[in-house]
Amino acid sequence: MTDRSDSIGIVQPHDCFFSEGIRLHSGQILAPVSIRYETYGTLSEAKDNAILIEHALSGDAHAAGYYTENPNEKPGWWDSMIGPGKPFDTNRYFIVCSNVLGGCSGSTGPGSVNPATGKPYNMSFPVITIEDMVDAQRKLKEHLGIQKWLCVAGGSMGGMQAIQWGIKYPDEMDSIIAIATTARISAQSIAFNWVGREAIMDDQDWNGGNYAEQPEHGLATARMLAHITYLSEESMRQKFGRRLQSSEDYSYAFKKDFSVESYLEHQGSRFVERFDANSYLYITRAIDYFDVAGRHDGELKKAFSKVTCPFLVVSFSSDWLFPPAQSKELVRALLANDIDTTYCNIESSYGHDAFLLEEATLGRMLSGFLDNLYVKKGEAK
Amino acid sequence: MTDRSDSIGIVQPHDCFFSEGIRLHSGQILAPVSIRYETYGTLSEAKDNAILIEHALSGDAHAAGYYTENPNEKPGWWDSMIGPGKPFDTNRYFIVCSNVLGGCSGSTGPGSVNPATGKPYNMSFPVITIEDMVDAQRKLKEHLGIQKWLCVAGGSMGGMQAIQWGIKYPDEMDSIIAIATTARISAQSIAFNWVGREAIMDDQDWNGGNYAEQPEHGLATARMLAHITYLSEESMRQKFGRRLQSSEDYSYAFKKDFSVESYLEHQGSRFVERFDANSYLYITRAIDYFDVAGRHDGELKKAFSKVTCPFLVVSFSSDWLFPPAQSKELVRALLANDIDTTYCNIESSYGHDAFLLEEATLGRMLSGFLDNLYVKKGEAK
Repeated sequence: MTDRSDSIGIVQPHDCFFSEGIRLHSGQILAPVSIRYETYGTLSEAKDNAILIEHALSGDAHAAGYYTENPNEKPGWWDSMIGPGKPFDTNRYFIVCSNVLGGCSGSTGPGSVNPATGKPYNMSFPVITIEDMVDAQRKLKEHLGIQKWLCVAGGSMGGMQAIQWGIKYPDEMDSIIAIATTARISAQSIAFNWVGREAIMDDQDWNGGNYAEQPEHGLATARMLAHITYLSEESMRQKFGRRLQSSEDYSYAFKKDFSVESYLEHQGSRFVERFDANSYLYITRAIDYFDVAGRHDGELKKAFSKVTCPFLVVSFSSDWLFPPAQSKELVRALLANDIDTTYCNIESSYGHDAFLLEEATLGRMLSGFLDNLYVKKGEAK
Repeated sequence: MTDRSDSIGIVQPHDCFFSEGIRLHSGQILAPVSIRYETYGTLSEAKDNAILIEHALSGDAHAAGYYTENPNEKPGWWDSMIGPGKPFDTNRYFIVCSNVLGGCSGSTGPGSVNPATGKPYNMSFPVITIEDMVDAQRKLKEHLGIQKWLCVAGGSMGGMQAIQWGIKYPDEMDSIIAIATTARISAQSIAFNWVGREAIMDDQDWNGGNYAEQPEHGLATARMLAHITYLSEESMRQKFGRRLQSSEDYSYAFKKDFSVESYLEHQGSRFVERFDANSYLYITRAIDYFDVAGRHDGELKKAFSKVTCPFLVVSFSSDWLFPPAQSKELVRALLANDIDTTYCNIESSYGHDAFLLEEATLGRMLSGFLDNLYVKKGEAK
């Protein structure tokens, strides 16, 4: 049972529907588009206290609070950071979080029904990009009547969206927080994503994307593989080492002898229950394609030439998926554009997952950055 | 066409057959056992110039030379190191390399026929260990009439076998060379092996190990995943970066857009042609189980208490599969036992694969170490 005393409490999801859809980066029109979102806190009369929270690959719109009174229910994925008195303080801010386009938790994605056929899109869903996700969120912003975000913030793929917001709509936010993220992923990350997708597409149950039941084995394998990249070698050593599941000797059979094997299988099985295989394909591809320097001949500096608002960039020392060097490259590009940039590489053994686990240290960074903004904004009035 | 002028030339494989088999570490008897091996150079009259070369996971007995005059044939896997005038100098030494027990290139493995049933063992093959591989090689040693190896040398899993030789048969070699290896793999490596095996076993063509045709997709996925761990992030960046296969834009489809994707798929396809899926399961499990400190309460020092011969230990700076820290741990345990130990961490961007690629630097290390041994041995006469 979780202590809910410091939580925002019971929340509920909303949907907004855009019949005109959006023009995708690939040139295709996707219509209609529906976006699932949640809000926490109250929008000020001046509508100047709204913060957009961006979720990572396997996240959703449910960032904080609970849906029911069930004492066993787990809170939203960033409940440690969002709530009354927390870094994203719902006593001050109006927090918005939406499920990404291409997702499987309420927003339009490959599992949605194609109105032209009356059947799910599946693999006929157009390939989407991080920019498309942001464009869909911008429709939500208009729908909510917000002119300017106080902040756009996210970790991992959420950080990519935050960066993309700054580049595409530089006048529409007062600040950006980019945590454990990158302006473009490495060849190694592209390779891991490729192998994960191969595992899904090789599962006979995938059936070209037209499945009634999930391709469980393939999706679990993709998740287990990805999960290894979210942890650091050090955290796996500390958490599991070479410990056996039973205290006895090896089984000399192909069983889950090691604790780490049992843990991974558990992660795979849980993921299959809550995430759609086709969405996994589309979202990882959007991550691969994300490269803010792509249309600027690889020079990161040019990509940020129109950005004006301050940035907070946070990396974690043991993150080898989106390593600190990539954050530093991002910071150099921001500074080269004379952008007010706060950067911290937090010492942590948790690897990439640190953005969800280093609550105390990350919380202080976020609070400090947001407090400063809030005070400045108050003074400006 | 390869220049063969510095090669040992045409070689041929041999088989030796042990009808009595061997008692495995698990307690089972495996009989009969057949071992495929090759030799290069000439055994001296005193039989004191024999060096055992140990292959890695996907290697075989064909370490040097060619089978045919076909100018397109590739030489054995370590031809750069073994031959006349090379570090493992066939003018001086008698080189032996055998395919491991559990392998699929001539030695008894899961694909061999079980004499009790007249059918291939497949998954009824007993789970084998690195120690079992060494015990099978010891039979070969007896068969060849060699009392003491001048050296036992190997990289990666080959290094594990070399270490195991030293621990189990400390009086039967004059030296040990352990390259890019470890006394026990990490939780992270166990996890990668687990995911690779899951990919194979989830392939419907695997069929519980009873396949007529290889489970190609699963085995290719396992290989692609493993291949990522053999390269370093830096080498992948240098080799591929985010380069596209075609000079045009993204496909906005699930094609091989990135060069690294195309490369990986090629590696997967090639592997399926030459390696057996069940062997992959058994050999990776043997790697997982390898832990020389296992029966010594995790203390590595005790494991080497009976070792007397000098060691050469080599690691590579960018190897993240069996990182330098693991070699240093090994070196500390050797030094704590007052074992004459030469250690070098070679600066390289090639990752784990450096043991096959850093020919010049590694070659000099090997030559120096072996020369020293050879001269000492000559003086002692």
